[in-house]
Amino acid sequence: MKCAGTIDVRDIDESSINIDPIQVGGRLTADAMKAIIAYGDGYSVCDQCRKPFRLDYIKTPPVDHFHLDLASFVNMDIARVVPGARRGFQAVADAFISPGDPVLITALSHYTEVLAIEGRAGVIREIPKTESTIITADLAANKIEEVTREFHRSPVLLFLDHFDYQYGNCHDLGGIIKVAHQYDIPVLYNGAYTVGIMPVDGKNMGADFVVGSGHKSMAAPAPSGMLATTSEWAGRVFRTTGVKTDVTARTFGIKEIGMMGCTLMGVTLIGMMASFPHVRERVNHWERELANGRKVVDALRSIEGTIIQSEYPRKHTLTRVDTTGSFDRVAQTHKKRGFFFSSALKERGIAGIIPGATKVWKFNTYGMTSSQAEYLAAAFRDIARENGLIVTE
Amino acid sequence: MKCAGTIDVRDIDESSINIDPIQVGGRLTADAMKAIIAYGDGYSVCDQCRKPFRLDYIKTPPVDHFHLDLASFVNMDIARVVPGARRGFQAVADAFISPGDPVLITALSHYTEVLAIEGRAGVIREIPKTESTIITADLAANKIEEVTREFHRSPVLLFLDHFDYQYGNCHDLGGIIKVAHQYDIPVLYNGAYTVGIMPVDGKNMGADFVVGSGHKSMAAPAPSGMLATTSEWAGRVFRTTGVKTDVTARTFGIKEIGMMGCTLMGVTLIGMMASFPHVRERVNHWERELANGRKVVDALRSIEGTIIQSEYPRKHTLTRVDTTGSFDRVAQTHKKRGFFFSSALKERGIAGIIPGATKVWKFNTYGMTSSQAEYLAAAFRDIARENGLIVTE
Repeated sequence: MKCAGTIDVRDIDESSINIDPIQVGGRLTADAMKAIIAYGDGYSVCDQCRKPFRLDYIKTPPVDHFHLDLASFVNMDIARVVPGARRGFQAVADAFISPGDPVLITALSHYTEVLAIEGRAGVIREIPKTESTIITADLAANKIEEVTREFHRSPVLLFLDHFDYQYGNCHDLGGIIKVAHQYDIPVLYNGAYTVGIMPVDGKNMGADFVVGSGHKSMAAPAPSGMLATTSEWAGRVFRTTGVKTDVTARTFGIKEIGMMGCTLMGVTLIGMMASFPHVRERVNHWERELANGRKVVDALRSIEGTIIQSEYPRKHTLTRVDTTGSFDRVAQTHKKRGFFFSSALKERGIAGIIPGATKVWKFNTYGMTSSQAEYLAAAFRDIARENGLIVTE
Repeated sequence: MKCAGTIDVRDIDESSINIDPIQVGGRLTADAMKAIIAYGDGYSVCDQCRKPFRLDYIKTPPVDHFHLDLASFVNMDIARVVPGARRGFQAVADAFISPGDPVLITALSHYTEVLAIEGRAGVIREIPKTESTIITADLAANKIEEVTREFHRSPVLLFLDHFDYQYGNCHDLGGIIKVAHQYDIPVLYNGAYTVGIMPVDGKNMGADFVVGSGHKSMAAPAPSGMLATTSEWAGRVFRTTGVKTDVTARTFGIKEIGMMGCTLMGVTLIGMMASFPHVRERVNHWERELANGRKVVDALRSIEGTIIQSEYPRKHTLTRVDTTGSFDRVAQTHKKRGFFFSSALKERGIAGIIPGATKVWKFNTYGMTSSQAEYLAAAFRDIARENGLIVTE
């Protein structure tokens, strides 16, 4: 069925249990669904835009309060909405990095951090991970020393993912930030996989910047996200235009250079806003989410030859699993080859795994009910058994 | 009525004739409304994202074809979707401007062009306008000479608005681009007020970059837009990442630095796509739109003391009018002061003018039926007459 022209109706989250690693935290709430229908049109939040003509000053709908709420949500001083976490990275990179500056990321950093630094011609250096795939304060300290020797100065910025996108492992945020600050290196906390699904306290961690993703973890449409900072850095990353033009002597008010003026003028912002009361509440139930994830991870571990590559026990609902010794062994002789697996999942109403993937893959159980988690756990076990793999009870 | 939490239902375009200067070209089509309901969730267009994992390669929904359609729509070689026209300006500024470089805009340029240049520490110089508020090729040539003398080199880039946001006047695109090219200055065509509402032929004009706004003129949700270019410049503005990290030796495929990887991963893109067949068709009816605008402009001109500040006859549906000598005179003694005007419009079901504005204001008749245009024209005349202004028949 088409919803418009050549575009198929999308009903994956209505018809299936979706375990796509990047999609589950960005499903809209019912309130967001209603709000985006009312605010679909282009500049829909701008009806009541008055002087000084900036998004975060709009009172109706209450965009102004929402900005205060966002800052307080992650316990920082000031926040802006941005078209995706990556645009938050970009704004901070613009404010801190000059060509040739050393900039730290980690061995598990997301590619958008790399692009933000590359865009400013910064020189990227990675903090290595331990054998168990964790970024530690010791490794960070060593790398800072090494980079400082190489460049004869400290890195200008550190991008740090609390939980990384590859393994969903928890890294030593507090420890690393403490070390970085000993060298006066400001730290950008990448909360794409945390802000909106678990409690995040920026000041308590010591973060200089907290970036969140609306479409990844705040039940909002794409592209959306947030960038929050302290009063110490706000003037730098949210600096306003200082141009006075040569002919007309025009000036441009309090438009922020790094934000490119207003950022989310319609459906994306209203989606974030409508979901926000639910998002603020749901972060308090992270333990329940982890319990659901555990059911599924334990089921996978009970299948002979299956290795959970993420740290165990799990501290996040995103998990990376290696089934080369189990489902991929089946694929070698199955008439559907590697597609037997996604196909068997599909028959059971489970979606979100790349068709054909049977070696290393990721899944995310965020947002499930416990029955759905049990159903998914049973499905993995059943598929294993049906295909002759040994499953420990 | 609330649609969610503290957010009022928005029904301005259902309940009123909206003449807001920036909103009328961004109202969704019915197909876009349907599509955004199906694709509201965060990463909704990414269900079938496969290698090489980039937005413009997705086949279902047909994002790949849409990119080709967009390029062809403005007669350029290659196009990308971006989170608003401003992000297109930013990407081009990033690729062309180094600190201290002279960059040309015009006396009527939009503030987002200024921010894009300021973000790269370019030095802004304005091409003046004529007394009748037009940017001409002669003025452009003089300014290029002047800037070249000042900086001992040509400007590195020229931002040119076909129709400006202040007056909706038509500037000599072809002539200016020809002059700029004589000095080897690449030209960015800002089509925020053209692409999606009237035919735009980038190559015929000689534009190096064509930028359009989804939420301003392509019946799409915010933030959305497009950036198109020629094969000559595509490699520069859409350059892919070249980083290989020092510890893990990771590389990042064909992600584009200036785009920050993928840009519109959900509702914004699907809105653009669903509206596109209608948008492609509607640009052919620009003359009809102008005829509607004419009815309204002529009505305003028939009110004693009213001055059309935009060029006349109008070549765009966006018009700037000075009613200091008419409606503002009424406001001096009216018990509602300046609010009498927006209030009288509101009573007649007309929205989009800032309450209290009676001196210089703008309106846009785009997308009206001819009956609506006649109704609006009659409303202006009636309000004038009721308040004792002389209206010429």
